[in-house]
Amino acid sequence: MNAEIISVGTELLLGAVVNTDAALVARALSGLGINLLHTCVVGDNPKRLKEAIETGLSRSGLLVMTGGLGPTTDDLTKETAAAAAGKKLCLHQPSLERIQSYFNEKQVSINQEKQAWLPEGCHVLQNDNGTAPGCAFQAENGSTILMLPGPPSELEPMLLHYAVPYLKQRQEFTIVSHNVRIYGRGEAPVAQMMDDLMNGENPTLAPYANEGECYLRVTAKAHSQQEADALCQPLIQEIKNRLGGFVYGVDVDSLEALVVQLLAGQGKTLATAESCTGGLLSKRLTDVAGSSQVFHMGVVTYANQAKEQLLGVPRQVLEAHGAVSPETARAMAQGIVRASGSHLGIGITGIAGPQGGTAEKPVGLIYIALSDGKDTWVVKRSPIGRTKSRDWHRHCAASQALDMVRRYLTGLPVVAE
Amino acid sequence: MNAEIISVGTELLLGAVVNTDAALVARALSGLGINLLHTCVVGDNPKRLKEAIETGLSRSGLLVMTGGLGPTTDDLTKETAAAAAGKKLCLHQPSLERIQSYFNEKQVSINQEKQAWLPEGCHVLQNDNGTAPGCAFQAENGSTILMLPGPPSELEPMLLHYAVPYLKQRQEFTIVSHNVRIYGRGEAPVAQMMDDLMNGENPTLAPYANEGECYLRVTAKAHSQQEADALCQPLIQEIKNRLGGFVYGVDVDSLEALVVQLLAGQGKTLATAESCTGGLLSKRLTDVAGSSQVFHMGVVTYANQAKEQLLGVPRQVLEAHGAVSPETARAMAQGIVRASGSHLGIGITGIAGPQGGTAEKPVGLIYIALSDGKDTWVVKRSPIGRTKSRDWHRHCAASQALDMVRRYLTGLPVVAE
Repeated sequence: MNAEIISVGTELLLGAVVNTDAALVARALSGLGINLLHTCVVGDNPKRLKEAIETGLSRSGLLVMTGGLGPTTDDLTKETAAAAAGKKLCLHQPSLERIQSYFNEKQVSINQEKQAWLPEGCHVLQNDNGTAPGCAFQAENGSTILMLPGPPSELEPMLLHYAVPYLKQRQEFTIVSHNVRIYGRGEAPVAQMMDDLMNGENPTLAPYANEGECYLRVTAKAHSQQEADALCQPLIQEIKNRLGGFVYGVDVDSLEALVVQLLAGQGKTLATAESCTGGLLSKRLTDVAGSSQVFHMGVVTYANQAKEQLLGVPRQVLEAHGAVSPETARAMAQGIVRASGSHLGIGITGIAGPQGGTAEKPVGLIYIALSDGKDTWVVKRSPIGRTKSRDWHRHCAASQALDMVRRYLTGLPVVAE
Repeated sequence: MNAEIISVGTELLLGAVVNTDAALVARALSGLGINLLHTCVVGDNPKRLKEAIETGLSRSGLLVMTGGLGPTTDDLTKETAAAAAGKKLCLHQPSLERIQSYFNEKQVSINQEKQAWLPEGCHVLQNDNGTAPGCAFQAENGSTILMLPGPPSELEPMLLHYAVPYLKQRQEFTIVSHNVRIYGRGEAPVAQMMDDLMNGENPTLAPYANEGECYLRVTAKAHSQQEADALCQPLIQEIKNRLGGFVYGVDVDSLEALVVQLLAGQGKTLATAESCTGGLLSKRLTDVAGSSQVFHMGVVTYANQAKEQLLGVPRQVLEAHGAVSPETARAMAQGIVRASGSHLGIGITGIAGPQGGTAEKPVGLIYIALSDGKDTWVVKRSPIGRTKSRDWHRHCAASQALDMVRRYLTGLPVVAE
């Protein structure tokens, strides 16, 4: 079955709100193995909404509509969809009672009552977090129209608890997707390496770039979850064989989540000493709930004096090689291991830009060091090609540091070739 | 002129990615006074993409396409749009050279070179943050097609620096918008206070919520920039009169940008001592280019031992009141002023969640202290209403700290009523 999402709301067309509803619905449909082929947004305009519904009914077996179910006069989704599908609206008494009890009143305004008028014969989806119920019904042409409220705090639970189970019981196939996450090789070379695997139909393989990393998505369709999963596994193995240690995980949330998990599993701790990344690395580590077990201390030593004082970076190193040098990165990593008593220490120093670059030390030149108190490794990141943003340099330097820790903890060479 | 956005990418239909591109473009169009009537998403499928472009050309004077400009074989936007608009693709030599220099190579792969093939006679939009250029060109029916790369880190700067100016010079009217930024009062109460100002037609006034802050956008339309600007000013003044010190700036980038600017202007320095925010505050300060002048040192003291060792928080304070207490926040702020020699110090300690809360100290309880070495102020943030995420609590605590510094430096009471 092919599906389509129509999101209704002028606020989406003004860019005041990001359409997270569509992503939530898309993910749910993808999980059900329902092919989503189109999504569109229309404003609170009856004529354009009617056109969008008619187009949708003509090409899609399932039309999911989000938004426009509320009490105000510009909430038109139900009225317009019912008319396009050849249905009348009827008062749904249990929904009216829910709205009354939501407001703790026997009588609600005519605007509020409007929300309980639903297409005749529809399957009602209860709203546990607001007033407007959702519903699903069959149009005259056989297509299904599913309507969900716009606020994500109402849509998401209704989708998960009522709409997905409703759709699931009508499904024949299951779809399973796995993301193979890669650090150290870009999307283009990865795609090239996988070129001969990219034309499969079941499983399918697609490459995606993602903020200095990339990942490959493997997707299969079958009658059961296990069967679909079994179809994915050989392809995932083949990708791992080709990419080796550049694959850092399958279905892991992020490099930082993986690093925290590896550290916790090995009972090890990590401390950070950051200059140009300014706390981004410690922020990313502590984004992970439970990171307090493995991360006790970080310092942001922006000034040279702070590098000397907190990390014991020798003044002669700073004077002879400069703050942005492999020697300083090394001394920072070693210094934070000493200062914190952690098993591992990271030192990052560089020029994130946009100012501060010279011919010899350009914007984007960043040194990242990892020390375990005995050995210390340094990676140099040089700017290549086009000017990148400050955010980009900082993000990539933090990712590089996390990848060095990941490689260390999994027994790979810390510095990739 | 009516506009339409077509976002291209199967990842959007799988819900793997939220379509922030569409919101960024929608906001930019709204700022230009261009009516956006439709947005849609199609996958990397030539047939459906062609249909979407044909529908778009038939009803919209401006078609903005996002995504699908990259090097891989499933990047089809340019090829399909050019064909639908009756244009050939030609090699754009300067773009090829940019791609070559991006990779620091004279020869790039055929996949990479593909990105430099653009519709004949198009206006090229340079990509300062990646390889795929954007472009704008006229279709045979007179409609304009504008193409932007999918990754938001490439799309956003290209949109702001090249696409908006290109569209602007083709507009008859000039639209001027000013954002009045507010900290310490929510969207709903602000909207209520401004209720009588909200029905104006030129200038218009609209409230927006934004990650624990809110802002009011004042927009006017006129034949010249000056004229439009003059229409905005009295309304901005009236908003300032009503909100007083809760307005932190007009058209400033962020609280952190303002704080860095205020510190630099007064020749003062700030140091940070963070627990639950894990480096987010120092990360946000150092997001601002040039922050090294005013920010020399930060520490992330996640463990109690680190609080004692780096900040001299007395063990008896930690034992008597706990790590999450006004006393500890105060000692952290005072400790970092001592350790760093900076003029001002921030201490943050709290429970960001999702675990670690108790009935007495629930998730979301965070203390933020500001010290100038002489006086110290503490603000307590308590969780209210619906459960919020770890990210939310951390972000709001960092913002609160920045606002305390802002209030201190502008002579307002540090702790707002």
